[in-house]
Amino acid sequence: MKIGIIGLGLIGGSLGIDLRSPSANGVQSQGHYIIGISRQKYTCKLALEKGIADRVDTSFEALSDAEIIIVCTPMGAIASTVKQVIPYINPDTIITDVGSVKYPIVQSCSQLWSNFIGGHPMAGTSSSGIEAAIPSLFTNAAYVFTPSEQNKLEDVEKLKAIALQLNAIPYICDAKIHDRAVSWISHLPVMVSASLIKACLQEKPDTLKLAQILASSGFKDTSRVGGGNPELGVMMAKYNREELLRSLYSYRDNLDGIISLIEEENWQDLSGILTSNGEARPKFLN
Amino acid sequence: MKIGIIGLGLIGGSLGIDLRSPSANGVQSQGHYIIGISRQKYTCKLALEKGIADRVDTSFEALSDAEIIIVCTPMGAIASTVKQVIPYINPDTIITDVGSVKYPIVQSCSQLWSNFIGGHPMAGTSSSGIEAAIPSLFTNAAYVFTPSEQNKLEDVEKLKAIALQLNAIPYICDAKIHDRAVSWISHLPVMVSASLIKACLQEKPDTLKLAQILASSGFKDTSRVGGGNPELGVMMAKYNREELLRSLYSYRDNLDGIISLIEEENWQDLSGILTSNGEARPKFLN
Repeated sequence: MKIGIIGLGLIGGSLGIDLRSPSANGVQSQGHYIIGISRQKYTCKLALEKGIADRVDTSFEALSDAEIIIVCTPMGAIASTVKQVIPYINPDTIITDVGSVKYPIVQSCSQLWSNFIGGHPMAGTSSSGIEAAIPSLFTNAAYVFTPSEQNKLEDVEKLKAIALQLNAIPYICDAKIHDRAVSWISHLPVMVSASLIKACLQEKPDTLKLAQILASSGFKDTSRVGGGNPELGVMMAKYNREELLRSLYSYRDNLDGIISLIEEENWQDLSGILTSNGEARPKFLN
Repeated sequence: MKIGIIGLGLIGGSLGIDLRSPSANGVQSQGHYIIGISRQKYTCKLALEKGIADRVDTSFEALSDAEIIIVCTPMGAIASTVKQVIPYINPDTIITDVGSVKYPIVQSCSQLWSNFIGGHPMAGTSSSGIEAAIPSLFTNAAYVFTPSEQNKLEDVEKLKAIALQLNAIPYICDAKIHDRAVSWISHLPVMVSASLIKACLQEKPDTLKLAQILASSGFKDTSRVGGGNPELGVMMAKYNREELLRSLYSYRDNLDGIISLIEEENWQDLSGILTSNGEARPKFLN
């Protein structure tokens, strides 16, 4: 199959590597013909060197006979990219994206292109850019698709097949439900964790210094996502604002509840919450 | 040196193993004579089998000629243990503890025994009990001592030497400052993380199910300490209540600040916070 990938960073590059290669176990041979698009000539050159694409170009013209196009640009550029690519492609082409918020993207892109199907492969590393692209990034990762009523079932099946070829686990769900679910487990943790670091930094210098010396794995883990990529954090908040605020309000209520229990020295109820949490957490770990 | 260890769980047991053994690099040979005390005969038997102690007993009488006694019971039992051991020991004996909150313990125990010096070796695993005791648990960990004015300098030096023999890094500080610092980096993260799990669990079953499926490393890390040992979480809150509430109030203010920025769509300031966090976080990672 001819597959176009627009944007050759960590996600786009890693998709290219795995969709071209025969799989590691040798049973399936993907061997798709990958057309890589980047605005940067240097990135195009690297993409050929790293085995990300069979052909590279800085122009969308190269996508004229692609059957599937995967838009891997930052979220803010997805809709404008779809708009710009339309004049060059044939009407059956499936366009999908890899953005981590789906409802606003599906809303705008479905109006531009009836064969647009939102996608979200839930994999990544702490690095970014084409240099960070690696094989097998999507192995065992969830790959969510959020088709709308106007999409053809066979097109959805084609994308599911691509996900399976990546050794990912495809899920189909409503774009709004996707955004609500990722708000809880991905976007809310960023703000919860960011508030922790910011609060600590307001302590007096001497005590802060001691806290920094004494900090160990508990602080390291709880603060990790709050000290991560700022652009990504802002994008989550911007595109998933409504759902993120909804989960933040609920979080604040629960925090207030725990504060009250400590104020009231109600150790029995605090113990009950911590016990329930310990029992519930394994269900979030796959 | 004859060292008594009361309470042979993860911490007490691991202290025994390393204080008896020659160090791994063979340069130092600790070879202290360890007297292990547990109320359980079975634990005493295991302590001998695991090389935790040279002698074990269920009675404090066995500690009559110990030069240092390390109380490794749960926090709630430290002061009563010190009270019970006093009739059996000689006046020069140094008593220290391993509780994770220092001010209330030092307050009560210093009145009972003038040679009491609070201690907090900052190491652990997710396991507990004598079965979890391991060699080298304290290597590179901070070991804080919080002497008061009544303590003899030479006694503090003796405890620092013990910490160095464990390959830990000794720090001396005021008990109140210790409690404030650990509130930020250890006790606050537990409540922040617990509120996250509790808030998620209030979502409708279908969306919660999807969230559980999609949860990955970000949620796993941010929720880890909030799903941990409930007894330990309650102990922190109970013994460090004042400092924990102080840091929780500051945390809530910072959370409210971030919520406001998202409500106002002030992406520039949100980006500023996330950028500062990313720059500040490495100072907490040793």
